[in-house]
Amino acid sequence: WLKISANEGNFSAELGGRIHFDTYLFDSDIEDPISTTEFRRVRLAVTGHLWKWKYKLERDFSSSGTSGLRDVYIATEVLGGKLTIGNFKPYRSMEELTSSNEITMMERSFTSASGIYFDRSRQQGIGWHTHWGCYTFGAAGFNLRNPGAPRNEGLGAAGRITWAPINDQISTVHLGISASHENANRNSNPIEADVAYAGRRGPTQLTALTPGGRDFFFDIVNDNGDQLFFFGNQGGKADIAGLEFAATYGPVYLQSEYAYGKFDGDYYLSEVVFEDFYGIPPTFACDPDNGCFIGDQDVKTWYIMGSWMITGEHKPYDSAKGVFRSAKPHSDWGAWELTARYETIENKDIPDLEADSFRLGVNVYLNPRVRFMLNIVLGDDEFTGDKTRQLAFRARASW
Amino acid sequence: WLKISANEGNFSAELGGRIHFDTYLFDSDIEDPISTTEFRRVRLAVTGHLWKWKYKLERDFSSSGTSGLRDVYIATEVLGGKLTIGNFKPYRSMEELTSSNEITMMERSFTSASGIYFDRSRQQGIGWHTHWGCYTFGAAGFNLRNPGAPRNEGLGAAGRITWAPINDQISTVHLGISASHENANRNSNPIEADVAYAGRRGPTQLTALTPGGRDFFFDIVNDNGDQLFFFGNQGGKADIAGLEFAATYGPVYLQSEYAYGKFDGDYYLSEVVFEDFYGIPPTFACDPDNGCFIGDQDVKTWYIMGSWMITGEHKPYDSAKGVFRSAKPHSDWGAWELTARYETIENKDIPDLEADSFRLGVNVYLNPRVRFMLNIVLGDDEFTGDKTRQLAFRARASW
Amino acid sequence: WLKISANEGNFSAELGGRIHFDTYLFDSDIEDPISTTEFRRVRLAVTGHLWKWKYKLERDFSSSGTSGLRDVYIATEVLGGKLTIGNFKPYRSMEELTSSNEITMMERSFTSASGIYFDRSRQQGIGWHTHWGCYTFGAAGFNLRNPGAPRNEGLGAAGRITWAPINDQISTVHLGISASHENANRNSNPIEADVAYAGRRGPTQLTALTPGGRDFFFDIVNDNGDQLFFFGNQGGKADIAGLEFAATYGPVYLQSEYAYGKFDGDYYLSEVVFEDFYGIPPTFACDPDNGCFIGDQDVKTWYIMGSWMITGEHKPYDSAKGVFRSAKPHSDWGAWELTARYETIENKDIPDLEADSFRLGVNVYLNPRVRFMLNIVLGDDEFTGDKTRQLAFRARASW
Repeated sequence: WLKISANEGNFSAELGGRIHFDTYLFDSDIEDPISTTEFRRVRLAVTGHLWKWKYKLERDFSSSGTSGLRDVYIATEVLGGKLTIGNFKPYRSMEELTSSNEITMMERSFTSASGIYFDRSRQQGIGWHTHWGCYTFGAAGFNLRNPGAPRNEGLGAAGRITWAPINDQISTVHLGISASHENANRNSNPIEADVAYAGRRGPTQLTALTPGGRDFFFDIVNDNGDQLFFFGNQGGKADIAGLEFAATYGPVYLQSEYAYGKFDGDYYLSEVVFEDFYGIPPTFACDPDNGCFIGDQDVKTWYIMGSWMITGEHKPYDSAKGVFRSAKPHSDWGAWELTARYETIENKDIPDLEADSFRLGVNVYLNPRVRFMLNIVLGDDEFTGDKTRQLAFRARASW
Repeated sequence: WLKISANEGNFSAELGGRIHFDTYLFDSDIEDPISTTEFRRVRLAVTGHLWKWKYKLERDFSSSGTSGLRDVYIATEVLGGKLTIGNFKPYRSMEELTSSNEITMMERSFTSASGIYFDRSRQQGIGWHTHWGCYTFGAAGFNLRNPGAPRNEGLGAAGRITWAPINDQISTVHLGISASHENANRNSNPIEADVAYAGRRGPTQLTALTPGGRDFFFDIVNDNGDQLFFFGNQGGKADIAGLEFAATYGPVYLQSEYAYGKFDGDYYLSEVVFEDFYGIPPTFACDPDNGCFIGDQDVKTWYIMGSWMITGEHKPYDSAKGVFRSAKPHSDWGAWELTARYETIENKDIPDLEADSFRLGVNVYLNPRVRFMLNIVLGDDEFTGDKTRQLAFRARASW
Repeated sequence: WLKISANEGNFSAELGGRIHFDTYLFDSDIEDPISTTEFRRVRLAVTGHLWKWKYKLERDFSSSGTSGLRDVYIATEVLGGKLTIGNFKPYRSMEELTSSNEITMMERSFTSASGIYFDRSRQQGIGWHTHWGCYTFGAAGFNLRNPGAPRNEGLGAAGRITWAPINDQISTVHLGISASHENANRNSNPIEADVAYAGRRGPTQLTALTPGGRDFFFDIVNDNGDQLFFFGNQGGKADIAGLEFAATYGPVYLQSEYAYGKFDGDYYLSEVVFEDFYGIPPTFACDPDNGCFIGDQDVKTWYIMGSWMITGEHKPYDSAKGVFRSAKPHSDWGAWELTARYETIENKDIPDLEADSFRLGVNVYLNPRVRFMLNIVLGDDEFTGDKTRQLAFRARASW
């Protein structure tokens, strides 16, 4: 961030950005995804203050149209906390709230918007966040809308509390808890849990679906004579609770989250639609007349991630936000980090619907703003049996 | 605007932007629009000079693709005026020429690109604007194209003269007159008057339509057996004249405009197409063979708007541009303003085709760059009978 | 470029941009394109360094979505050269490698991405470029992907060597040679040579096509009963070699390139598809059963371009990149330049498939950053017989 200031000191602007350039190579199994290069993030952001208000405007040029908006808000201090109005991340899941410039692996874990909060990273609304001593607290109310989603009347709320009982130069222990409630309504997108278990741009496994309020209800026969239908109550809610644990000791880092969610169901799919959505035919008996009934779905997901800075650096704790940042290299030769993560997600109400992922990685911090990342992802979709694997490389700069 | 200057002084760049974040809540009637949050504007702009030339490049990230381009031009001084080449607003309608950071209500009135100049705010072409004493004059010639519209051979011209017979610290009286000529040609979009009478993202009423030059002519039968056709001369012209009156006296402000337009017609619609376009079946007799004839259409629209700065501030007059700016708060507690507007638009050649709108509002100026706005909009579409109402809120920052 | 620097000197940002605003007027022949105004380029770019790494992020707002990404890369010095990772131009064709702010005519010649390298200007990959004495050398390996193209497994490589045996204040002689290899694979776009022989937004003549790896193979009958088919081997390679010659002597400039390419074929088109692709029915005998066979295609293209700075300025040579820059005006009155170019492209394996273009132009350099350009383009498509002509005007600013 480079600071541009006007004379008066009453307002300022800073210009930042990031480039994340990836290469994905797949070792295919049942699924056969396309290997490719790809810009994961190409962002420009302007932030600053206008008297007592802050603003931030961030656009990701690796996404098209209005879906490329990221943090876009105004904020000010109210009652000792930060009041935010606009598009920002609701306070839930430590991994989600960690900047993409600071995450340990190339992609976030299943407890984030890469899984149980699928495609619901930022939402439009109002939030308030504060911290005192070793605690942080944040709460947000929002329309179920990110700027790329349609206008809709869905509403949500989320809150998070963190506690760092230990936090000194060498060691930190972080505990957190969050809760999220989302209520779809007219024109809301479906609320889904969905995971790319073999890495980004690899195969995905839909894990839970609450219909939402869009035109999602049909009853047609396709060219092959298959019945395609999806009937049920529009709307529906998703309630998700999460637990966070993270700790550092010198160059060693450990992070784990557990999330449990209840996704409203109460709808019927034809067998063909089930297979189209979930990848294989139903694993339970469907009614010959009404099709496959999907009721309320309990979803469980967790991960455990560890890293070791071979060159001895230490991940600092951001006690104002309740998240860890990545380490800065000590020497001109850069810093090296070994990383590993196991993660799993399961729908307890659809038999066998579970997907797991194991990642091994190396991060090379060339300087505080430039990093190379290498991840090997071993996917395991227990539902379809697919075990696609990925080798992924990222060149990353931020300023 | 934060100034970045190179050493030589021969060129400069300034970085500006704006965030307008809205919430719309509808009280539905016949129409039932979706309540939602929405980014109304998310803009970044760079402006500066290159020796004797100025440039401006502005992009609105709340619009997709090339339609997000706003002011994009180069300009220099020629014959005592500013010569502009590129994409900018032709000189017509005071309300249209007032920046969205300075308008009194959340949306502009029916005499602007939110009504009689529907979707024709900025156009690509060349303009010249000057001011002397209490007068301003501007004229522009342009292709009927904003950057989101297709390539086309339509041409237009517009001019505006303003006079401020009184303009001192306490009181200003402004008078203005403008004229616009638009001539659709190969591949031009239709030229329309169209109004969102119950606020943005609420129901709209098409008020006049000149076909333009795109593939707008069809004769098919739909699945219900309805005849769908639209026959007639391609192209067509729209000529619009406007009158402006505005005055301040201390904290009180009054603004009014009247516009009269002639939209070329001479085409036939089937009854089903008429209803699809205008919302209800034809209000006049249609020929059983040829359908509903739409000839030349005279459109009349006007509004009257008033505001009172409760905290005593005064709206300054920009005598170089012939528009008013919004007030700056005197105290750290901000400024408060009460606002009201009545507006109406009527097509005199289609019986009963009229829509009205009444708005009441409060503006809170937290500081010179951050404002909250609240508008209550009482819509009244006399054509369809719909009386949808809207409560709208905006959080606004610009820098 | 305006420099913004942080205190430490370890990182910096500079903000640049360009506006190219065009008007195209066509004198139609067989083809009848639409005359229009158009933003040719509307770019913002941020560039800077982060310790020993450079970054560049450039977005063109005249293109929609991710296809608007231009130079987006990080770079550092390795082995005495510049190592680049991201999206950038592979090292091939002098005209292609000359910035759009510096080219002599409004559009580049047929030896560039406006012809034999159609739509393959920038690619995602890794490159290395160096210069020593009067030599430059660059090589790049890349995925066949620009950010607007689909994810695909195509690969390419390109290299270029230049030599400037003479390079002093008054005169320069430049010689260059480049080679490019592109190998389409799963999901690659077709590799094409395609030219707009009568200027931008005018008619185009497809000159060669290698199928690539997308769903390009069909066998259907259209509503008119015509057989539409395109069968053959997916994938395919294109190998292109180029020669460069350029020289200045005071205000006079001469530039010429020759390129020869081999585009893999081995596919069959129905006659209707041939005409749809190439504009006219096949000029060779097609098999009544199998259709028109397109084998490997040899493509030859060259151009010769000259210019004279009437006001005496001299085009400087960028000996680090092996390209020429445009002249800067000596006086406050600006600089004037007369320009001319003849160019031709030919597919030697489809009888008569040749298109030529002749351009005459005037450039007026108002100051070092603002320029007006006028081009008259005389198109000559020898294949279809079309001789459409264009008058084109550009207002151009860069900073």
